[in-house]
Amino acid sequence: MRVEIWSDIACPWCYVGKARFEKALRDFPYRDEVEVVHRSFELDPGRAKDDVQPVIAMLTKKYGMSAAQAEAGEDNLGAQAAAEGLDYRTRGRDHGSTFDMHRLLHFAKEQGRQEQLLDLLYRANFAEERSLFDGDERLVELAVAAGLEAAAVRAVLADAEAYADDVRADEREAAQLGASGVPFFVLDRTYGVSGAQPAEVFAQALSQAYGERPPLEIVDGGEGADACGPDGCAVPQH
Amino acid sequence: MRVEIWSDIACPWCYVGKARFEKALRDFPYRDEVEVVHRSFELDPGRAKDDVQPVIAMLTKKYGMSAAQAEAGEDNLGAQAAAEGLDYRTRGRDHGSTFDMHRLLHFAKEQGRQEQLLDLLYRANFAEERSLFDGDERLVELAVAAGLEAAAVRAVLADAEAYADDVRADEREAAQLGASGVPFFVLDRTYGVSGAQPAEVFAQALSQAYGERPPLEIVDGGEGADACGPDGCAVPQH
Repeated sequence: MRVEIWSDIACPWCYVGKARFEKALRDFPYRDEVEVVHRSFELDPGRAKDDVQPVIAMLTKKYGMSAAQAEAGEDNLGAQAAAEGLDYRTRGRDHGSTFDMHRLLHFAKEQGRQEQLLDLLYRANFAEERSLFDGDERLVELAVAAGLEAAAVRAVLADAEAYADDVRADEREAAQLGASGVPFFVLDRTYGVSGAQPAEVFAQALSQAYGERPPLEIVDGGEGADACGPDGCAVPQH
Repeated sequence: MRVEIWSDIACPWCYVGKARFEKALRDFPYRDEVEVVHRSFELDPGRAKDDVQPVIAMLTKKYGMSAAQAEAGEDNLGAQAAAEGLDYRTRGRDHGSTFDMHRLLHFAKEQGRQEQLLDLLYRANFAEERSLFDGDERLVELAVAAGLEAAAVRAVLADAEAYADDVRADEREAAQLGASGVPFFVLDRTYGVSGAQPAEVFAQALSQAYGERPPLEIVDGGEGADACGPDGCAVPQH
């Protein structure tokens, strides 16, 4: 079974939802048959690379909240994160473009290091004092810690189009699948879970997707299959 | 869209079918949204690692063919391969266990080198004079040519259990999906194509899977989703 998770590094519920999903996955009896793939989604796709501002300031400006409301929201999110055993810095976090991070996550996927990099990006954004949006070298350090080669990472960052189409394709696909927010979980392209649901909901979705797989619809050309099986290979008749 | 292809390196129709599928994929307008994953399937899972014999001898012994029948089958397969632009050595090819190759393909997948390694394994088995079943160093050379590190490859080969569960899980899944022979293509876990069908059949399956995706069935806990979207992040109410 494959679980695809659309998320943004700048999304607190994605950080929390990942932990809740992983809790369900740890207890899922067929966890070894589950492959997890992370997909790109930007909450703020129009933001310029050099446009970084404190989260609280962004919230008050973009959504018209008072500073007290914005801070209460962060406190609430921090409590939800803490309940999952996650560190969460409720003050002083920055907001900025995550496009380059998503490009790097696609590169990391090719190198088998996507999960490691995403965890480090979340941690850097939500739990560490130093801003995640502190220039390319900040990302290089995190990527190297995730097991990627510094020179290769710098090359990806320097070429603004590297993996950019992969990010955009993920975002198009999210829209096609009906995701308007994140995190958004898709199981075998059949079941969807929207948001950081409790672990029990993820457990239910995993069981349902695993147990109720409909049979495949076979597409063929009306002829027998040229295939090899336990009784040998078909010999071509055409 | 994701296409999973179950195949065996020892399967001539898998070698031919891969080329036919790729022809269809090249002409598919949404090819950039298609991800291909190769899955393990052994035609001869009980074969010991050191039990290598010429294909013609295996065919006469295992399936009771005459040598002339076995050779005619190879000639036919060679003609089908040639029609796809593939080299095919119709005489002198060996048959042996492919378990270690499948283990390596899973390692290569983690490293983003699965496709490269599979192509080199097919080529070595069906087109090159030197036997593919010529010991571990033969596999190390091919894996290095696919971009993997020699020491890491040797470590995988030396540990008979490394990635062995991944191979077995793929094989269990093939059975669950109803595949009794290979190649077996599965599109988004919804459509199946059995055998080395003509490129037109793959083109039809790709279009069908792409165009007719049913909407996701949403699994939730009956509550609103804790998610972030263009209008900000939900504030926890519970």
